Amino acid sequence: MTASAAELSAMARARELGASVLGTTSPNPAVGAVVLAADGTPVGEGATAPPGGPHAEVRALEQAGARARGGTAVVTLEPCAHTGRTGPCADALLAAGVARVVVAVPEPTQLAGGGAARLRAAGVEVELGVAQQAAEEGALGAWLTGVREGRPFVVWKVAGTLDGRVAAADGSSRWVTGPDARAAVHRLRASCDAVVIGSGTALADDPQLTVRNADGRDAARQPLRVVLDRRGRLPRTARVLDGAASTLVSTAASPRELLGELFARDVRRVLLEGGPTLAAAFLRDGLVDEAVVHLAPKLLGAGAPLVGDLGITGIGNALTLTVTGLTQLGGDVEIRLRPNRHTGDRRVADHHGATGGS
Amino acid sequence: MTASAAELSAMARARELGASVLGTTSPNPAVGAVVLAADGTPVGEGATAPPGGPHAEVRALEQAGARARGGTAVVTLEPCAHTGRTGPCADALLAAGVARVVVAVPEPTQLAGGGAARLRAAGVEVELGVAQQAAEEGALGAWLTGVREGRPFVVWKVAGTLDGRVAAADGSSRWVTGPDARAAVHRLRASCDAVVIGSGTALADDPQLTVRNADGRDAARQPLRVVLDRRGRLPRTARVLDGAASTLVSTAASPRELLGELFARDVRRVLLEGGPTLAAAFLRDGLVDEAVVHLAPKLLGAGAPLVGDLGITGIGNALTLTVTGLTQLGGDVEIRLRPNRHTGDRRVADHHGATGGS
Ligand SMILES: NC(=O)c1ccc[n+]([C@@H]2O[C@H](COP(=O)([O-])OP(=O)(O)OC[C@H]3O[C@@H](n4cnc5c(N)ncnc54)[C@H](OP(=O)(O)O)[C@@H]3O)[C@@H](O)[C@H]2O)c1
Ligand SMILES: NC(=O)c1ccc[n+]([C@@H]2O[C@H](COP(=O)([O-])OP(=O)(O)OC[C@H]3O[C@@H](n4cnc5c(N)ncnc54)[C@H](OP(=O)(O)O)[C@@H]3O)[C@@H](O)[C@H]2O)c1
Repeated sequence: MTASAAELSAMARARELGASVLGTTSPNPAVGAVVLAADGTPVGEGATAPPGGPHAEVRALEQAGARARGGTAVVTLEPCAHTGRTGPCADALLAAGVARVVVAVPEPTQLAGGGAARLRAAGVEVELGVAQQAAEEGALGAWLTGVREGRPFVVWKVAGTLDGRVAAADGSSRWVTGPDARAAVHRLRASCDAVVIGSGTALADDPQLTVRNADGRDAARQPLRVVLDRRGRLPRTARVLDGAASTLVSTAASPRELLGELFARDVRRVLLEGGPTLAAAFLRDGLVDEAVVHLAPKLLGAGAPLVGDLGITGIGNALTLTVTGLTQLGGDVEIRLRPNRHTGDRRVADHHGATGGS
Repeated sequence: MTASAAELSAMARARELGASVLGTTSPNPAVGAVVLAADGTPVGEGATAPPGGPHAEVRALEQAGARARGGTAVVTLEPCAHTGRTGPCADALLAAGVARVVVAVPEPTQLAGGGAARLRAAGVEVELGVAQQAAEEGALGAWLTGVREGRPFVVWKVAGTLDGRVAAADGSSRWVTGPDARAAVHRLRASCDAVVIGSGTALADDPQLTVRNADGRDAARQPLRVVLDRRGRLPRTARVLDGAASTLVSTAASPRELLGELFARDVRRVLLEGGPTLAAAFLRDGLVDEAVVHLAPKLLGAGAPLVGDLGITGIGNALTLTVTGLTQLGGDVEIRLRPNRHTGDRRVADHHGATGGS
């Protein structure tokens, strides 16, 4: 038996719920869950709380109450079977009396694994791998990168002109894009655990790097601000050192070393907002997992390029990506992309930019 | 009285009909016409034939036959009242017995003007200015630029990477974009009367610049191929000189001078396919009316830029455009834009990129 239409639509909602808490759950995964009553009506929704708080299933079950009995739990990640800071979710599902559990991504870690087995042993029907790819490419992506590669997921964000300039010849770059694109950057920051720039951007633009809400005020939760500054060029008066949020000034020798430092601090999703030098360093090392490019419909004809030297000389060796999203943000254009890796686990499946399963 | 819903939808169809013959009618406008029977049913369609052939209204009336009597003619441009190579369209409409004529753009020239007046004098109801802006920005744009500015309309087409490179560091540029984008370029060429490059592109890429159909064969009608070569660097063996279509090698001193030469040859719509040097020259002189940018999801980090020096140093002086279209072409992205002019006749009306009326 596979998933019903009601279950698939509940799974889409569960993915949204997971995405809504991205940036607040690390080092835990941003999971979403929906509980359907026995008749298929949605009766409970939940997403992972910040570390120490309840998991998504538990929240959804609380909301559902007695209506969960004989119903179905739809979850983006396999319910855990271990007792961490919270009790095992598998037990909570059994206690609530659900008859069926539909899961997108099987738990990849030994520690938390075994949830499906425990549920099945207790007579609950468990469906694994439902719309798995969408969940893996969504809110779970950052955490899965951590599990699989032992490093945070990196989103590279850049704002440039049509002709690929991030600043004008005189160094001015405020503002390349309009207010809608800038508001989107703040939402993007809020979905990350850390925001990284290089000393070059700190010196040129002196950004504050905080998350500001639509009203212009600093958000309650702030990602870690990180400046890569190997030569100690960052002045004490830099705005990133203003105390409005935590800041790490790192002298890591390479992007990989920096990501190691950040992973040890429970960072699972990084927004790279540096200039062309740092962007090139991450790209050369294959450490960009997603790119968000904001293109302003402007031409400059000169100025700093989107990305510095990549050591590429011929068109055949270009670093290729796949477009995953294309939208207008006010007068600007947002292009979302994923670099194509040649590891065989992700490939261009057709010319519409979809990617094959892993 | 304004236009009915049936008339507005006929006008949208008339615009499509006009666009379908763009590139085949110069120096005449690419007009589209739809005839509705008295009960509002579409009974005839037409578009301008190549010079010497019938106008759009005449073709639509032919198709409608007796069903035009008491009906409505919907036309993108005011029917002419003069006898050129064909008889006046106003007379054809009267002979067919239409009761009403709905027009988008009033005829701007003295010579052909007076059609509406003649029709009204004969008792026909005439509505002018219906969805005028859409028609002016569509297939009539090229011809209107000719009437108003005495020069051809210029479409700048460029294919670049995400980071704004049109070629790699070693000069290689085949192929930046994929087959869908390249096919779109051939359709774009077919909609133009001339295709222009500079000697730099001729020397670097040696393009043939012909219109090839989907089957790879040369189309029957070919735009004039133009190479701007002031220093006589174009070799005799260049493919643009292969005789597959007409070619003009020009030594015009400036883009404006070149456009004057082309206008005198009845060219009304030019596709600028040159490299960064020529693109910058046209942009600096304010002689780009529309831009079609094909962005490949690739990064090079080095290579020739989308556009050469524009004499702009600060971000506040960037040349700004308005996005009019955004689509995926295979794995690539097509962005269509119009430069914002500061003449007061076209301004950004809202943040969705719409432009105000003239
Ligand atoms: N429009 C946008 O989206 C945007 C965003 C950011 C910046 N910008 C523009 O970009 C320009 C600044 O460019 P940038 O390239 O200098 O900025 P950057 O990439 O942020 O900073 C470069 C600096 O980072 C340091 N760094 C530390 N670790 C590094 C590593 N592993 N690899 C490479 N560099 C490392 C280097 O200094 P040390 O050797 O001293 O460590 C290097 O000089 C400004 O004009 C700014 O306005 C635009
Ligand atoms: N990806 C794409 O869409 C695309 C399209 C075209 C070219 N390209 C690439 O662009 C590179 C060639 O660049 P390019 O800039 O040399 O090509 P270009 O702009 O086509 O040609 C430049 C030449 O045009 C001549 N020219 C004539 N009148 C001019 C005027 N009024 N202003 C300026 N120049 C005038 C100049 O030579 P004279 O002084 O001798 O007249 C100048 O050197 C190649 O790498 C090619 O692959 C890419």
